[in-house]
Amino acid sequence: MPRIRIATEADLRAAVRLDREAVDCVEQAFGALAQGGVVMPPILRLDIPAANGEVDVKTAYMPGVPSFAIKISPGFFDNPKLGLPSVNGLMTLFSARTGLLEAVLLDNGYLTDVRTAAAGAVAARHLAREDAAVACIVGAGIQAALQLEALTLVRPIARARIWARDGAKARARAAELAARLGIEVSAAADPEAAVAAADIVVTTTPSTTPLVQAGWLRPGQHVTAMGSDAEHKNELDPAAIARADLYVADSLAQTRRLGELHHALASGTVADDAGFAELGRIVTGQIPGRTAPGQITVCDLTGTGVQDTAIATYAMSRLAGSGAGTDFDA
Amino acid sequence: MPRIRIATEADLRAAVRLDREAVDCVEQAFGALAQGGVVMPPILRLDIPAANGEVDVKTAYMPGVPSFAIKISPGFFDNPKLGLPSVNGLMTLFSARTGLLEAVLLDNGYLTDVRTAAAGAVAARHLAREDAAVACIVGAGIQAALQLEALTLVRPIARARIWARDGAKARARAAELAARLGIEVSAAADPEAAVAAADIVVTTTPSTTPLVQAGWLRPGQHVTAMGSDAEHKNELDPAAIARADLYVADSLAQTRRLGELHHALASGTVADDAGFAELGRIVTGQIPGRTAPGQITVCDLTGTGVQDTAIATYAMSRLAGSGAGTDFDA
Repeated sequence: MPRIRIATEADLRAAVRLDREAVDCVEQAFGALAQGGVVMPPILRLDIPAANGEVDVKTAYMPGVPSFAIKISPGFFDNPKLGLPSVNGLMTLFSARTGLLEAVLLDNGYLTDVRTAAAGAVAARHLAREDAAVACIVGAGIQAALQLEALTLVRPIARARIWARDGAKARARAAELAARLGIEVSAAADPEAAVAAADIVVTTTPSTTPLVQAGWLRPGQHVTAMGSDAEHKNELDPAAIARADLYVADSLAQTRRLGELHHALASGTVADDAGFAELGRIVTGQIPGRTAPGQITVCDLTGTGVQDTAIATYAMSRLAGSGAGTDFDA
Repeated sequence: MPRIRIATEADLRAAVRLDREAVDCVEQAFGALAQGGVVMPPILRLDIPAANGEVDVKTAYMPGVPSFAIKISPGFFDNPKLGLPSVNGLMTLFSARTGLLEAVLLDNGYLTDVRTAAAGAVAARHLAREDAAVACIVGAGIQAALQLEALTLVRPIARARIWARDGAKARARAAELAARLGIEVSAAADPEAAVAAADIVVTTTPSTTPLVQAGWLRPGQHVTAMGSDAEHKNELDPAAIARADLYVADSLAQTRRLGELHHALASGTVADDAGFAELGRIVTGQIPGRTAPGQITVCDLTGTGVQDTAIATYAMSRLAGSGAGTDFDA
């Protein structure tokens, strides 16, 4: 009769914050992915068109990490009409030696939010200019907020513009972020101007048509596109990938199929054998990140199982320290 | 803050038994699969060779069923050396309308055991002769026991032989089953003779080399092979598929890749465009099952997500009736 730990969203919010420690945890996960021995199967996706819903299941085994997570992320996009959040889900943690269930983390998507935002910080840490001070966030949802917060952990962000199709949402998000982060944040009326003026651009939407045009980009910028995690999603003009001096994927196996790279390849804008990089090889120093201030860099994040195993294992270590959660004999 | 039901293995054992109701539940799931609208993605498999472990994640959406399950099945085959069972896991149940988590069924693989055995009963109900009275079970594990028990629910089984590589295990299992089922059960020393004398043969092993040769089969027999659920597993001589008058898969998409059919196709023993059947089309009457007493029929079971959604939904309805389980605010 295995004894498992069950933790609620409240337990997990108290234990895990979006801070440098969480960013380091996710950076190490990308590093592991680049060092061999990680087993990360293709994402399982269940589509439920009748409910405008989709579910992603992600996992990865990391050598040397005693547990592995299996993360279940439902996204049901009509939920807001019912007064419910679109994204929910949980993480389950298993022993990598016996496969026994160790923990059920009822995070309602919170740990996914943290590890996704942390990946944005890892990308900026290795790809944005050291003096990057101006951010443009495309989208006004939870990740818009968290991605900006994550940038402030790794770069001296002083000003940010938020652009979203729904101007009222952008204004509300900007006001909240200005108050919470203590920096200048405003809503942008014109996405082109907001993108052009930024040192770092982060796209955070489920858009299926490009929101950022290649011609808007300026030398020295870094762009992180984190919204696309499915074949039909697309935030960047495929020509933006071609225009970048350095294109970096969280996982090329995934971005070729699900990310911005997928659309750039499909449109023939970039060649299939072009030299694409993976973030893990940069964080481990196997290949360089940004090498000159005038480069344009693009990071394409689809979300990886190693991030889930890393954040779930980290959450468990924090829970163990605090004694939070409930033990359950299964 | 979603309210979820958490049920332990003890709760689930009290609520769900391997009985005709469970067999009917799984039969309906196969029927749904044949009637269109089911979404059943490919199985997610995580291999952890360092621990001789593998994890399967299965799911399916069934139109008209208000919930869907995501089932996580770890199999760690060195566990018995540690005094632990090889197979564990849990099922999670979500609303098919909102994606919200409804239940965590901490069954340690029990519901999988039941729905897997129930599928064997469905196969026998539609493919074995009505008067089938003699069974041969290959293997001596939990599924060996449950598959024999399942056969007794649908056919007048009076005698069974158990063959396994480990003769002591076969003798122990035979003694236990004779006592529990009240029929004549003995261990077989010679698999060929045990197979040849049976009306129904069920193979229940993780073997990677065929255990049942085509030449051992006799007219009128039904064979269910339920052990193979991965590319490298193989219980039946590929020529047995060619010899069968009727080959039936739980899911052709799966058996072509993971089942006995995979090896028959790979060896060229059967042609890729041969007329293969699916169990769901037989249970719904779209195509006939056995049509003559002298036919040899083979059913190839790899385990499907619809079975998991069906048994988890059924378990929840039984739990709701009994009030068992613990409510938890996530």
